[in-house]
Amino acid sequence: MFKMVALYKRPENTESFDEYYFGTHMPLTKKIPGLQDVKITKISGSPMGESEYYLMCEMYYESKQAFKEASKTEESKAAGKDAMKFAGNLVTFFFGEEYGE
Amino acid sequence: MFKMVALYKRPENTESFDEYYFGTHMPLTKKIPGLQDVKITKISGSPMGESEYYLMCEMYYESKQAFKEASKTEESKAAGKDAMKFAGNLVTFFFGEEYGE
Repeated sequence: MFKMVALYKRPENTESFDEYYFGTHMPLTKKIPGLQDVKITKISGSPMGESEYYLMCEMYYESKQAFKEASKTEESKAAGKDAMKFAGNLVTFFFGEEYGE
Repeated sequence: MFKMVALYKRPENTESFDEYYFGTHMPLTKKIPGLQDVKITKISGSPMGESEYYLMCEMYYESKQAFKEASKTEESKAAGKDAMKFAGNLVTFFFGEEYGE
């Protein structure tokens, strides 16, 4: 599977982040055509103690081609724009092929 | 599932990184007791173009408790020490609970 990853640093106010993220941003994300699965990781720490990261969202597509097609849609652009609006200073995006090892 | 994530920045020499990672580090990692699944993502880019990240390894455990038990083992300590040895300047670790959204 091909996935897009959104990795968010810990926000100052986790409560308002969660409210917006799950109440507004996730419903926008789930409208993206071709999106097959979404996994969330609530980051609780690191081997050194606290982590600077707070949440990771993994968005799965059937292939890189399917992801590229999805990225051209209005729904994808709206979700991306929304992420930058509410968490532009916190989020890092990257993508790639996932496989079992 | 509970997972530990190792996120590696792009190394200067990807060929020697891959050789060590898959030839030496991954076999050490897979010896960790309680480790149920390993997923690798070869990061190929970001919406802005290149990504500073190169590879993400996700290591799955049945629960946080199982992960904590695993972390106490010699095998886990050896794998962690090895990661710091060959990629201490590239790797970031974090962990948390993963769930579908």
